[in-house]
Amino acid sequence: MARVSFPSPGWVRDVGEIEGIEPLVWHPDDPVPDGPIDVVVAPYIGAAGCIASVAHVDGVRLVQLLTAGYDGIFERVPERIAVANAAGVHDDSTAELTLALILAAQRGIPDFARAQTEGAWLRLGFLPSLADRRVVVIGYGGVGRAIVARLLPFRAEVIAVASTARDGDEFVDQVHGMTDLASLLPTAEVVVLALPLTEATRGLVDDDFLGALPDDALVVNIARGAVVDTEAVLRHTDRLRFALDVTEPEPLPPDHPLWTAPGVLITPHVGGPSTAFRPRAVAMLREQLTRIASGQPPIHLVRGGA
Amino acid sequence: MARVSFPSPGWVRDVGEIEGIEPLVWHPDDPVPDGPIDVVVAPYIGAAGCIASVAHVDGVRLVQLLTAGYDGIFERVPERIAVANAAGVHDDSTAELTLALILAAQRGIPDFARAQTEGAWLRLGFLPSLADRRVVVIGYGGVGRAIVARLLPFRAEVIAVASTARDGDEFVDQVHGMTDLASLLPTAEVVVLALPLTEATRGLVDDDFLGALPDDALVVNIARGAVVDTEAVLRHTDRLRFALDVTEPEPLPPDHPLWTAPGVLITPHVGGPSTAFRPRAVAMLREQLTRIASGQPPIHLVRGGA
Repeated sequence: MARVSFPSPGWVRDVGEIEGIEPLVWHPDDPVPDGPIDVVVAPYIGAAGCIASVAHVDGVRLVQLLTAGYDGIFERVPERIAVANAAGVHDDSTAELTLALILAAQRGIPDFARAQTEGAWLRLGFLPSLADRRVVVIGYGGVGRAIVARLLPFRAEVIAVASTARDGDEFVDQVHGMTDLASLLPTAEVVVLALPLTEATRGLVDDDFLGALPDDALVVNIARGAVVDTEAVLRHTDRLRFALDVTEPEPLPPDHPLWTAPGVLITPHVGGPSTAFRPRAVAMLREQLTRIASGQPPIHLVRGGA
Repeated sequence: MARVSFPSPGWVRDVGEIEGIEPLVWHPDDPVPDGPIDVVVAPYIGAAGCIASVAHVDGVRLVQLLTAGYDGIFERVPERIAVANAAGVHDDSTAELTLALILAAQRGIPDFARAQTEGAWLRLGFLPSLADRRVVVIGYGGVGRAIVARLLPFRAEVIAVASTARDGDEFVDQVHGMTDLASLLPTAEVVVLALPLTEATRGLVDDDFLGALPDDALVVNIARGAVVDTEAVLRHTDRLRFALDVTEPEPLPPDHPLWTAPGVLITPHVGGPSTAFRPRAVAMLREQLTRIASGQPPIHLVRGGA
């Protein structure tokens, strides 16, 4: 029997009974419970801020995150404990928000929504379609692929970029490596950032990156705020457009100049939290815990334990 | 040699030379030119308001519209003159705006855009995804099919409805008839109106239609405003949501209550006018005029001449 803690009673209810799994409720912000726990399911929101407390719980073998990203986790969880992310859980929701941001920015939705409060039937002329645009998607894991799958019917030219070049798949003829960016950026009309935040990607989108883009290009960030140099963004709003679901810092302070910079659309890190999240998270947890109960190795490991 | 009038010099330039076609510039708002014209290309904006002047031009055999809709045209063009619409030209642009409206409404983009002007990092909880929703697309011509093609990768359940039931295609297993609406509406979470305005569809979306929908359903209109009873919409904003690119009346007067009704997103009839329009219109005109120059019958006829 494996003991598994969930951060709230709702998760215990929704995941339901699994043979060989004994569930309990424990949020890592709360006092450490009695007895050992084999698997700690971290809370969806704010895991990095509380997960260090697993160091004081006996027997923990695995921390299961409910996020795809795991920045800030490794340094707070003892090395003996393995860490799994929620790979796949957020792909649909995040890809969907990405398309919402691209389409809203291209077709003027923010301007129309603001004009609506004043009863103004705006005439903005012929705004840029997504059709016929060249779209470069940087990061081709689960989220990047889910974005590309949704982009294809829009008759855009879609180019995928990953850390290293590789063969294509059912969506793209080839996957470019990051070294191709220098040749891809000058003709990119939409750039989507869908890559993890690592030391290699921190600050990737800087003055050089932005300076290489053509006038009026749209940069969409649904990855992590720190992939982009916010100060560099502010220096390029005169000729580029931005749609940012993540920012650095986050939350963005009320007086931050990014809020009111021209051509910038900001959503408050809502790629993951939609109604698509819970059923996918529950399915992932059931699969993971069923494996663990039957002695199989866990899936979605982003760090093995010791 | 067929004489063809275009509403501005830009169209003559972009369509380019076609053997057997003699182009001239004439906007139907302007004085009738000398000599006969075989084909009149109507202006994209405001055709119904000026097209009656073709009655005073000699030799006109065909009015070529640049819109998909042709409401208000037949009664103003003499019956001896055939009318062709711009079938296909607006499919990509309109379908794209439809997805923009659905995704924006589902994922809170209008609220976030308005909060942005106040520097507010809104917390709205878990908003409804498009994933997992049941979407009923009413109208399955070119625009309806283009919408469905774009919806499919979002992992929604997509149901197509046309005036009469027919077999499915590469996108859907079957096409429902309008008589199935009564059974489809009670579980429809998103309804897309993509059908032409005719006497049969005028006021289709009335109190009965809206009353049949479940709470929090989203109604998207990218067809024509008069397909929807605006007063009925205002009676249902307490439990339904709306995303409307077209309204009745149009433009919506500044003091109209629809502007500020809760859960209503309004865009000012911008389904067609994007950068996707011109290249597709030019390609359609070249195809049409090449046919006419070679004596073939015109395509996209919505009314034959006499």
